[in-house]
Amino acid sequence: MRYVYDFNHAHRRAPKDLKDLLGGKGANLAEMTSVLGLPVPPGFTITTDACRAWLHGGAMPDGLMAEVMKARGRLERSMRKRLGDATDPLLVSVRSGAKFSMPGMMDTVLNLGLNDKSVEGLAAQTSDRRFALDSYRRFISMYGRIVLEIDGARFDEAFDAAKAASGGSSDAAVPAERLEALCNEFKTIVREATGRPFPQAPDEQLRGAIEAVFKSWGGERAEAYRDREGIPHDLGTAVNVQAMVFGNRDDQSGTGVGFTRDPATGARGVYGDYLANAQGEDVVAGIRITEPLAALQRRFPKIHKALLEIFDRLERHYEDMCDTEFTIEQGKLWMLQTRIGKRTGPAAVRMAVEMTRASDLRISRTEAVQRITEEHLEQLLHPQFVASRPAAIARGLGASPGAAVGKCYFTSRDAYEAAARGEHVLLVRPETSPEDVRGMLAAEGVLTSRGGLVSHAAVVARGWGKPAVVGAEAVIVSSGHATITGHRVAEGDWLSIDGSTGEIMLGEVETTAATESKELAMILKWADAIRKGRLSVRANADTGEDARTARELGAEGIGLCRTEHMFLAEDRLPIVRRMILAADEQQALDALEELRVAQRADFVDILEAMDRLPVTVRLLDPPLHEFLPSTEELAVKEAAQGLSADEHALLEAARSWHEVNPMLGTRGVRLGVVRPGLYEMQVRALMEAAIDRIEAGGHPVIEIMIPLTVSKAELAHAREWVEGALRDTVPARLRRRLHVSIGTMVETPRAALVAGELAESADFFSFGTNDLTQMTFGFSRDDVEGRVMGPYLELGLLEHNPFDTIDVEGVGRLVRMAVTEGRRSKPGLKCGVCGEHGGDPASIRLFCEAGLDYVSCSPFRVPVARLAAAQALASAAPTSR
Amino acid sequence: MRYVYDFNHAHRRAPKDLKDLLGGKGANLAEMTSVLGLPVPPGFTITTDACRAWLHGGAMPDGLMAEVMKARGRLERSMRKRLGDATDPLLVSVRSGAKFSMPGMMDTVLNLGLNDKSVEGLAAQTSDRRFALDSYRRFISMYGRIVLEIDGARFDEAFDAAKAASGGSSDAAVPAERLEALCNEFKTIVREATGRPFPQAPDEQLRGAIEAVFKSWGGERAEAYRDREGIPHDLGTAVNVQAMVFGNRDDQSGTGVGFTRDPATGARGVYGDYLANAQGEDVVAGIRITEPLAALQRRFPKIHKALLEIFDRLERHYEDMCDTEFTIEQGKLWMLQTRIGKRTGPAAVRMAVEMTRASDLRISRTEAVQRITEEHLEQLLHPQFVASRPAAIARGLGASPGAAVGKCYFTSRDAYEAAARGEHVLLVRPETSPEDVRGMLAAEGVLTSRGGLVSHAAVVARGWGKPAVVGAEAVIVSSGHATITGHRVAEGDWLSIDGSTGEIMLGEVETTAATESKELAMILKWADAIRKGRLSVRANADTGEDARTARELGAEGIGLCRTEHMFLAEDRLPIVRRMILAADEQQALDALEELRVAQRADFVDILEAMDRLPVTVRLLDPPLHEFLPSTEELAVKEAAQGLSADEHALLEAARSWHEVNPMLGTRGVRLGVVRPGLYEMQVRALMEAAIDRIEAGGHPVIEIMIPLTVSKAELAHAREWVEGALRDTVPARLRRRLHVSIGTMVETPRAALVAGELAESADFFSFGTNDLTQMTFGFSRDDVEGRVMGPYLELGLLEHNPFDTIDVEGVGRLVRMAVTEGRRSKPGLKCGVCGEHGGDPASIRLFCEAGLDYVSCSPFRVPVARLAAAQALASAAPTSR
Repeated sequence: MRYVYDFNHAHRRAPKDLKDLLGGKGANLAEMTSVLGLPVPPGFTITTDACRAWLHGGAMPDGLMAEVMKARGRLERSMRKRLGDATDPLLVSVRSGAKFSMPGMMDTVLNLGLNDKSVEGLAAQTSDRRFALDSYRRFISMYGRIVLEIDGARFDEAFDAAKAASGGSSDAAVPAERLEALCNEFKTIVREATGRPFPQAPDEQLRGAIEAVFKSWGGERAEAYRDREGIPHDLGTAVNVQAMVFGNRDDQSGTGVGFTRDPATGARGVYGDYLANAQGEDVVAGIRITEPLAALQRRFPKIHKALLEIFDRLERHYEDMCDTEFTIEQGKLWMLQTRIGKRTGPAAVRMAVEMTRASDLRISRTEAVQRITEEHLEQLLHPQFVASRPAAIARGLGASPGAAVGKCYFTSRDAYEAAARGEHVLLVRPETSPEDVRGMLAAEGVLTSRGGLVSHAAVVARGWGKPAVVGAEAVIVSSGHATITGHRVAEGDWLSIDGSTGEIMLGEVETTAATESKELAMILKWADAIRKGRLSVRANADTGEDARTARELGAEGIGLCRTEHMFLAEDRLPIVRRMILAADEQQALDALEELRVAQRADFVDILEAMDRLPVTVRLLDPPLHEFLPSTEELAVKEAAQGLSADEHALLEAARSWHEVNPMLGTRGVRLGVVRPGLYEMQVRALMEAAIDRIEAGGHPVIEIMIPLTVSKAELAHAREWVEGALRDTVPARLRRRLHVSIGTMVETPRAALVAGELAESADFFSFGTNDLTQMTFGFSRDDVEGRVMGPYLELGLLEHNPFDTIDVEGVGRLVRMAVTEGRRSKPGLKCGVCGEHGGDPASIRLFCEAGLDYVSCSPFRVPVARLAAAQALASAAPTSR
Repeated sequence: MRYVYDFNHAHRRAPKDLKDLLGGKGANLAEMTSVLGLPVPPGFTITTDACRAWLHGGAMPDGLMAEVMKARGRLERSMRKRLGDATDPLLVSVRSGAKFSMPGMMDTVLNLGLNDKSVEGLAAQTSDRRFALDSYRRFISMYGRIVLEIDGARFDEAFDAAKAASGGSSDAAVPAERLEALCNEFKTIVREATGRPFPQAPDEQLRGAIEAVFKSWGGERAEAYRDREGIPHDLGTAVNVQAMVFGNRDDQSGTGVGFTRDPATGARGVYGDYLANAQGEDVVAGIRITEPLAALQRRFPKIHKALLEIFDRLERHYEDMCDTEFTIEQGKLWMLQTRIGKRTGPAAVRMAVEMTRASDLRISRTEAVQRITEEHLEQLLHPQFVASRPAAIARGLGASPGAAVGKCYFTSRDAYEAAARGEHVLLVRPETSPEDVRGMLAAEGVLTSRGGLVSHAAVVARGWGKPAVVGAEAVIVSSGHATITGHRVAEGDWLSIDGSTGEIMLGEVETTAATESKELAMILKWADAIRKGRLSVRANADTGEDARTARELGAEGIGLCRTEHMFLAEDRLPIVRRMILAADEQQALDALEELRVAQRADFVDILEAMDRLPVTVRLLDPPLHEFLPSTEELAVKEAAQGLSADEHALLEAARSWHEVNPMLGTRGVRLGVVRPGLYEMQVRALMEAAIDRIEAGGHPVIEIMIPLTVSKAELAHAREWVEGALRDTVPARLRRRLHVSIGTMVETPRAALVAGELAESADFFSFGTNDLTQMTFGFSRDDVEGRVMGPYLELGLLEHNPFDTIDVEGVGRLVRMAVTEGRRSKPGLKCGVCGEHGGDPASIRLFCEAGLDYVSCSPFRVPVARLAAAQALASAAPTSR
């Protein structure tokens, strides 16, 4: 195995595609050098293989240092200078460069090669002894801190003392003589701390710096960063050793960063900053005020022209906007880095669309679609806080994306009334329940201190596309005010929440509005063209209004209409409770009859909004006690003040329907079995609505879905109810015009394991991946997401939260098995997914691979899903289906 | 396809092995006729194929009646009589005969062939007109009721009127003339009810009777019976058409049943009943007093001798005890039926052992083992109620087998004190908790009105082998008395419960004691020899006492030692609560330290009881709130009377640890992650106990088990805790002498799905099939077993309760996948099962097929498991492992 490649090595494949091996920085340096022939200070890259070998064995792999020595020799020969040379020394930088950018996370050593002799050579060569000594001082402290692991404060204290003794506070105030003394002092610090003198041999310096970079891969900061960004821990980093150039040599020198287009807006034309007589760190540090790149045109017109030409070549070569770093040393331009530039959402879609044009880069539409990320879309679809946002005072779970700013109110009624007065309102509650819906609707956003990503607040807010932060434990809500990490927030005080990150900020933070973007519409249209006939995107919607929103956002049907939300409405709940409390069959049937009338109107509204598109209606799913008050509340009231007869009956019913593990209890189709007539009632209401629609000239397309199935006999039994109700309700003359299919959720592991049998009684499968994940892992989302998931992700016991992105090995395996075995038994069986994973791009990739026909997600995720599905299909090999 | 076989047909295989085709009765009639040449009235069998075709098509399959007509012709020729003949008619019986015996469940038509003409022929032939007319009367009413579906009451009323008019109450009082009038009246009833005359044509009668038998297969009673007995509904029944013989012809006639050995004790020598001048029904009906078979010897010495010879031939031929029916008609012996005889538990083991002897049938030991059923064993191992038990007044879930009789007490303390006074006590409670343990221990049995088969009462009682009936909703416990379906049961009143069937009976019902049986010991020894080196049987035991019991009952180790029971002991609970309430890490560690000392002693006791045998210790599994009081109870107390500071802290903790679905919450290894130090503490306690044992000369063999694993990283992480605690606790000099392996429960579906990876960090797998079933089905056992399982089994939505017998298609598939993929990744990986299925014979068969190394069950199930495992292995093809 070869561990070291010069930048100008002639690779068989384009180096920019070798990021696995060379890291991102090394790959692009090699690309610029060996392919584009751009002026890059020469150097070489030590591969990630070497790092992995080091991480694995804990020592430099065999042969690595020999290769490094040879590469160092080649570098010296090409530069006609030598490391440590007493007259005209070569200096190098040693930088990490992983496959994925990890800015600031790992270590860099500059000015390597300086020692007691070569510092004099540098002084002679630059005719600037102060510059040479200052470089040496920087090198010793940097090397001491990073490679030798000496507390950096010791060097800083010594330098501060030197500055004080020189009577100034700036680095520049320290004269050469004192710098020389300081170098000696620094070397003493090193000897004291390590018991050995500061290494003078350049090769020893080099070896130490390389090992320090390897080691920094496993540092705490870097690990935490990778956890956050989802970068695997076993990649390792490459190391780039490169000849130093100095932008701080003189006035003919300088340094800058440049983008080939504006990364904020996407406008064509270069964009960047320049700083004369300075090093790269100075630009980044922001201490000195930079000039725009245009300033270069006046001062160094030839260099400016050369830079623009390079930018143009980079764009054409990379076929994308590039981000670069460059340095001018004594009038000569050097390119130090390039990479595909990061961009805002609006810039991303503008560039992607424009670059498809003949007058631009002529990328394909598929390529344009591939370049838009989920974050880009969210920036366009939801208001965002400006970049200069203040620090968060607390953080909860980002439950529904977007920025929301408003005056705090602590009850639904207060929030509603304030909004009616024209105030911007934020509803802050310990948690929400159906009684809070009016206040939630009136509010700009919702903040709760309890509950997880499937709490009432989270689910409702996501359904409306309204920003929400939930489960923010630091928010303690009292009557009329809240305390947040020591800050008292009174009624009417401004607060800002970020529903993407979960951040909570004091005051009225500035936001940018959601953008109406023609380019976005175009991107989504192209995405739809890629998806067409392969994977459709539906929405989960429970009301006509949700359905209309979803259709506007591009939904091609409803994948999940939850009928329980119809049961929870204020005017329905008493009827539902009457059904549960019914003393005999007749009372129960009477209540069911009332519910039927009410549900029918709901269904008409939904079917109208989704005319000609499929609407999947799930029959009642949740356990009945969700429609009853809590036993504890009533029991406490009973002890304190007694109960009315009605309340007593409710308490009895709540006790009788109480379940130890309601998620695994009497719900879904089991409810249909223990409450005869319930499912028939729902189907009748739905069919009557469909007949209304047909008679009004509509074209309803209905899929009836049985939830929580575990066996074929159970599904066949439920199917008989549904077919019976169909026969009873739909007159023969209408049957041909009414498209109804009957299928099942696959949400228990057993349903997936016996999918081949289930398919015999199902016209379609819809994977309920939320429950399937809960049961496959044995994770009650309400319980583990708060207490368990955090430590599990931190300790790496799970790679990611399986409720965010589908678990490929466990849940995903069940999905693949069920699709395969279901279709083996019924070829062409329609399969979709209606869990929240249906809106997650990474999960959508798996669903594409599994051959699903559609995904369904909340209305406001539909654009993300349309894009992600197209991207997944575009990257996948065409399937035979 | 051929549908009809004469009894004397020469089958290619022994007819007794053709029960699938001929049904049980038909197969044995054919065996006796065609193989043994015994005197059997001739006849033919219509196969189950014909019935299935009829069930499927709803009509007689093509060609069936033509075959029947041919067979009828052969029968007439061999008997030299003809159906419906006016001078010497043939009569036949038409009886159902399914593969499995379903006594009394399906229909029989006797005397078929009688009509207005042949009744006179019968009168002439028998010189007994009254006999002929009585036979005709019986036939019309029987045919009318069964084939023509006329309400039987109409015939009964007419007959009662005839009896009354004859001035007597007995059938025999009705003279011939009145019988003749009655036959006419019966025919009128038929014409009125069906609009057609009573069929006179024998072939029409035959066709109707055959169809009626087919139809009776789908009758309600028969379906319910098959559900209860686990007989598949799609088998269908065969139909036997056989020449009638009459045991009620004269004093030279009679009928009887005979067993070739005593079915109650197993003693050699024939056993049976005989009734002179009677038909079979009279013996079964029990109206007339029967004589023992020996009486035959005096009256018909030649027939008695012939019968004994036949019994001897049957035993040698079937190699087992046979049950027969015979009839003597005018001095000639006819065999009407034989089959392998049912027997009691004591008889079963005695026969099985004796039949292996050279002086007896010389069956093999393996065959002897195969002949003992689970029910036989239970009859030997637990006290049983006598057969003449009274009717049950209510029924609960049979949670722990055996009969228990005692005086009722309604609190643990009362029960304990009464037992201390020497009373036999039954503890009756709404449900039990750890505080009731003392009373449960003192009681003969436990009865609760709430809770399922995994409730506290059920689990604890099974652990002790003490009879228990739980979840008997009809039992309403008040203070000082209980009401059971209207019966008031006061403190001190006698009650009897059957922990096998769940029955509750008033009063002191007589029991038979459990039997110490040398034969049983021998059977189990032979079973062990079959299992040796292939499948071992361990016990689930949490205390030294349980472990000792288990070892006495033949357990070869502990497959599951639940450490939570150690936490629930009265003196431990306060410490556990201190750990949960701990304000800081130190307080938590202090509490853990106290627990460690306590657990160490428990472990010493268990390891000593199981010296040299493996002991699998599961680290703490249940959610922490199980160690806290209920929030509702405390909240009610708070509202009613206020709480102390301690109680308030407990309420807060209970609220904070409250979970929506505790089964899927913070438990198992998750608890180890969120409560650092907990698992290390347990391992330290265990290792210290092991060291104590080694120093006392013992040989502890320890398997440490991590519960509820979902990912490899999680298991590897937990394994590090365990290994760390091992290193810290066990001095190097002892490591070699201490056998410790570290494995995991496979109880989440995901663990089974990623078993290949898990195996890399596991020395063994133990399938927790209880939880695996709960999660695979999404069935919370506590919730669905009460409300859902009943209707599901009744409606056939599930074939059986998957908590009783493992679900082969779903859960079983996961087990097979996990074993296969686990061993692919780690060849020879030890795999066992520790769910309650480990004691269920049908499940044990699946575990054998899946290649498991051991099953583990509660101590009192160990003999059943030893037997069932041997039977499964003996019937299975030898595996390559």
